[in-house]
Parts: sequence; C-alpha cells; structure tokens
Amino acid sequence: MRATLIYGAGDVRVENVPDPVIEQSTDAVVRVLRACICGSDLWPYRSRAATEHGDRIGHEFLGVVEETGSEVRGLHRGDVVVAPFVWSDNTCDFCSEGLQTSCRHGGMWARNGVDGGQGEAVRVPQAQGTLVRLPVSEDSALLPSLLTLSDVFPTGYHCAVRAGVNARTTVTVIGDGAVGLSAVLSARRLGAERIILMGRHKDRTDLGREFGATDVVAERGEEGVERVRELTGGDGTHAVLECVGLEQAVDTAFGVVRDGGVVGRVGAPQYEKVPMGSREFMRNITLTGGVAPARAYIEELLPDVLDGTIEPGRVFDRTVNLEEVPDGYRAMAARQALKVLITP
Amino acid sequence: MRATLIYGAGDVRVENVPDPVIEQSTDAVVRVLRACICGSDLWPYRSRAATEHGDRIGHEFLGVVEETGSEVRGLHRGDVVVAPFVWSDNTCDFCSEGLQTSCRHGGMWARNGVDGGQGEAVRVPQAQGTLVRLPVSEDSALLPSLLTLSDVFPTGYHCAVRAGVNARTTVTVIGDGAVGLSAVLSARRLGAERIILMGRHKDRTDLGREFGATDVVAERGEEGVERVRELTGGDGTHAVLECVGLEQAVDTAFGVVRDGGVVGRVGAPQYEKVPMGSREFMRNITLTGGVAPARAYIEELLPDVLDGTIEPGRVFDRTVNLEEVPDGYRAMAARQALKVLITP
Repeated sequence: MRATLIYGAGDVRVENVPDPVIEQSTDAVVRVLRACICGSDLWPYRSRAATEHGDRIGHEFLGVVEETGSEVRGLHRGDVVVAPFVWSDNTCDFCSEGLQTSCRHGGMWARNGVDGGQGEAVRVPQAQGTLVRLPVSEDSALLPSLLTLSDVFPTGYHCAVRAGVNARTTVTVIGDGAVGLSAVLSARRLGAERIILMGRHKDRTDLGREFGATDVVAERGEEGVERVRELTGGDGTHAVLECVGLEQAVDTAFGVVRDGGVVGRVGAPQYEKVPMGSREFMRNITLTGGVAPARAYIEELLPDVLDGTIEPGRVFDRTVNLEEVPDGYRAMAARQALKVLITP
Repeated sequence: MRATLIYGAGDVRVENVPDPVIEQSTDAVVRVLRACICGSDLWPYRSRAATEHGDRIGHEFLGVVEETGSEVRGLHRGDVVVAPFVWSDNTCDFCSEGLQTSCRHGGMWARNGVDGGQGEAVRVPQAQGTLVRLPVSEDSALLPSLLTLSDVFPTGYHCAVRAGVNARTTVTVIGDGAVGLSAVLSARRLGAERIILMGRHKDRTDLGREFGATDVVAERGEEGVERVRELTGGDGTHAVLECVGLEQAVDTAFGVVRDGGVVGRVGAPQYEKVPMGSREFMRNITLTGGVAPARAYIEELLPDVLDGTIEPGRVFDRTVNLEEVPDGYRAMAARQALKVLITP
C-alpha cells in the first residue's frame, strides 16, 4: 500500500510499504477513509534531522474495518470506526480513570512497527479498546467532523475540562490553530460565556468567533497580556487554554490568568521548564493538562457531532489525496492552510 | 511594647516599638497570647542582607481583642481570636471564592506599617474579616493547636485539598517539617489511607506516623524516588504534597507522582522555574497549590481542634518567651526544634 514517511525536516514522501496484516489476536486492520495532518506533525517537519530511512507519520484517521483478530469483540468487517491518536486497551486502571494515554498496554501510532495514520490502511493494536464505531456510512458528509474526534477536538476539550471551564468561568484561549479553535468550541460547549481568543490570523479568529469566542486579541506578548487584562478589569480570566506549546505562549498564559486560576495546556511543549516561582505561588496558579486521552471523550462528544450541534470539522480548510500529502505539509507549515484533510 | 525585628541573616532582636493603636475604623488591637516561628521566617533568617533598621517579623498569632475600630462588628474587647497569616476583608470576590490571600483590600503582616505577629500586641487591619473568634478562655490548653490555625495547619490542609486528596488517592508528603506533618494530618483527615512521608528526622517522622503516615521514606533524591516507586508498584502516588520549597523537593515530587496525578505545593518556592516539559506533559501531571488562604479553612477545621479529634499543636516542641525569640530562631535554624511556640 501507499503511506506517508518523513525523512527529515521538510522532507515528507509517499511511498510503497507492506500491506498491514493481523499480527496479534487483538489487532484489526482498518482501511483509511479520512486522515489529516496535525499541528504536532509540523514539529518534526520543521526540525527533524535527515535520515536514510523514512519513518512513518500520522496519528489521526477514521476508516472501515477490513479484518479483526480472533480476540476482538464488537467490531466487524465493514464497520466505520474512528481511532484516537493513542491506542489503548481501554480496560487497565489508567484507561478506567480516563487516562488512556498512559494505558499499560497502549502506545503511539507510527512507532515501534505500528503503522502511521497517513496511509491507505493501518494495523490497529488493541483494536477493541482503541476503535470507536461510528453509526454512519462511508460517504457520510459528517466524516470531517467525526475525524476530529481522533485528536484535535478532544485535545481542545481536554484542555477546557482540565482547566475547569464551566458557565461561571471566564476563559482565554491562546492560539488560533485548529487546537485553539477546538478549545474555543469546547469552552462554549462547557458553558463559558466569556471566551477571549488570542490569535492574529483573521480568517481563523473569524471561525473562532463562530465557534463561540466573544473577544479576539490579536496582540502578542506583553501587549497581548495587557489587552486581555484590560478586557477583564485588570484581573485576567479564571481559565487559560494554552494551545501553542511555545515558551512565549506559556508566559502569556501566566500573564493573563486570574489569581487562583488554572492554565490548561495541550500545546506540545517546546520547552523544558515553566515559570512557576514565587509570583505564581503567591497567586495560587495551577498548571494542568497534557497529552489528551482522546479515547476518554469520544462517546461524550459523538452525539453532538452526529446531530450537527457542533461542527469541529470546519477546521479543515484544504483537502488533498494521499499522493498530495507533501503539498499538505508545505501548506500547513507555511500557514496557507489551517488544517489539511487527507482522502487516501 | 516589645516586638521582634530582623536586622539581617542570623540577626533577630527583641526591641521596644510603638504600642499599636487603632488607625482605621476597620482595625482592632489584639494583645498576643501565643505566637510562633514559621519555617518561612527561616528564609530571611538565613539569607537577608544586613540593614541599619530592623524589620518587624512574624505572621502567626492568637490573642485577645483589646480595642476595635468603629466599623468592626462581631468582635468585642476580651474575645479570644486567631489571625490567619494574611489579613483580608473576607467580603471581596476573591475572599468569597476562598482565596483570601488575593483579597482586594488585604495584605501581609509585618509589611507597610503593619505590625508583625512576634510581639506583645498587633494592630489588625480589616479586623472583622481577618479575625476568627475562638470559644475558649485565655488559659485554654488548646491554645497551641488553635494557634496552628493561623498558618501551618491550614497550609498543609490547602496542599492536600488542592491536590485532590480523598479516600481513593494514595499520597506522598515531601518534608517532615511542621508543614509536612500538617499535610499528613490533613491527608488523613480527608480520608487518605496510604500516606508515604518522605523525611529523615526520626523524631519528626515518628510524629508523622502518629498523624497518619503509613510509610516513611528516609532516602532523598533519586534514591527516595525509587523507594516510593517500589512502595507503589512502580507507579508513584496520585497526590504529592510538596512541603519544602527547594528545587530538589520539586524534582522529587515529579519523580514520585503517578501519571495523571497532582503535585500540590505549599513550600515557599526557592526556585523560579519548574520542570514541566514534554515528560510531564505526556504524563498529564498537574502542578497546583500556593500560599494558603488559611482564613478559608479555619471554620472548617476549628471543630476538630476544639473537640480534640486532631491535635496539630503537637508540632510545637519548644516554647520560649518573647525575649528568648532569638534563641527560638537559632534552635529552628539548627533543626534542634521542629517549631517554636512563643508566649509573650
């Protein structure tokens, strides 16, 4: 089959790879209907050292079950399924607590001999725990929004949940990428009435407003902090959803959070340490969040997607076929596309 | 009157200062019955640059109301009262949320013309909001335990509350000082059944066992982390209560916390940044806590102290009079005393 490999910074190729087959009795093989490129795929795309051999890439996909191992229950050939971006048994103690990203028998796509999502098909380990059946057909118009359940939407949702967003909390979302916009949608879904979106790409922040943002702050750094403080009577907001992952965004988060407030973070950290010294201590600031256990949220979010209450798939603004995936990377890296959908 | 002043590292003196008088209509004057020395007083005691003029010091006291300003309601001459270590109006939005340490009209003792607690008397700003009446006499045997309500016990309690301690959480407490032991007592009160105390002073950890610690780990650093991991099947504990404030203790906290777990911190930070990079992100670790709003917890904790269910005053292992306060500092700094009670 054809699949995407990364050979180094700026070097993504679509090549022939072995067709996936059942290796373990808990595996399934899924033919990919839709996949996409993640903001986190851009970190290696920008910085990975060149290698002779390519590495598989991609961790967001939905598709059709082609085959299941002998131990897999509840999934059948022809089922349309979505895969969260970490595979897991969904039965261990961590999974039971809703932390499938720490599953005792789980792991990441595109590592250690596991397929990546940006290909024609995927061998899915721990298929029964990992895959969620979707009550739609292969040509459903909902596929883009359903695909967001694999990562970007639950990632924004995880951020908002961990930051304690509810009807009584004011919220700042840092970042107008697909995760930031998903965080806006999530905060609104959790009842927040005041949502300040920090971002400077008008087409993105316009979508953010449609998703529920009440204010947009285009300024960055100290200026951006001042602007959010002005909008909140000097106090900042109860919750801050950090959806970028850069040190400056973290600094901004601490600058705009209200005393006693919570900074949730889901931007993959491009830093090792955060400023949580005396000042944040005296203000009782909490820092939480992390890699999102998407699997924990899919059942909760699915009905709203199925009935059209929310349309997280609107973050996709470009579609490519599998052979065009390298163009998709270039477009996202150049910020010509917000998020790229792949139809293999 | 006589009061304690700090002139620099190792230089604490008891001197004559002006008697406190009502300055604002919201003030009260309280004659001090009991005060004490805080672990946080030792930071300036160890490091403050020498000054010509001394600065008042001390922020934990209970006493008797001598006089009240015209706007103070509910407090009368002769009332025995305890003062939390931050004064506050107890009516603003932050106070209403239980964050009296961020009160819009509050402040710290021994700063900006406000008296310190280690003296014969104190002018109490925002007296109605700050002081809590105690239904005991001036010679009650409960005074030491009641005095802990001003800081050390609610500080440990804040740590446990913020870290989400309950009957289902395993807990590690880092530090066998008075705050750490208070955190043990607090975790037990909140229902924790497995409490690992990290500390290497046997007399202190013995008291910790009486307060509810089920395991004691004397090793520090990497070795201590390994030991806690051994005790928890390799996983670490759900909650970690960091009661020291040194960088090494924070590193230990991240080392012994379970995936998805919470590090609560109440040790005054002697660091500016904490290690919350990719590793902690992938493990969904939360860092919370901060300066404790003692005022928020006093009514909740008071009944258990009054009926003897808990005896947080057992952390006091030395008593001095006011003139002997410099000896008290020396003893605490040399770890010859766990916590020093002052009877002015």
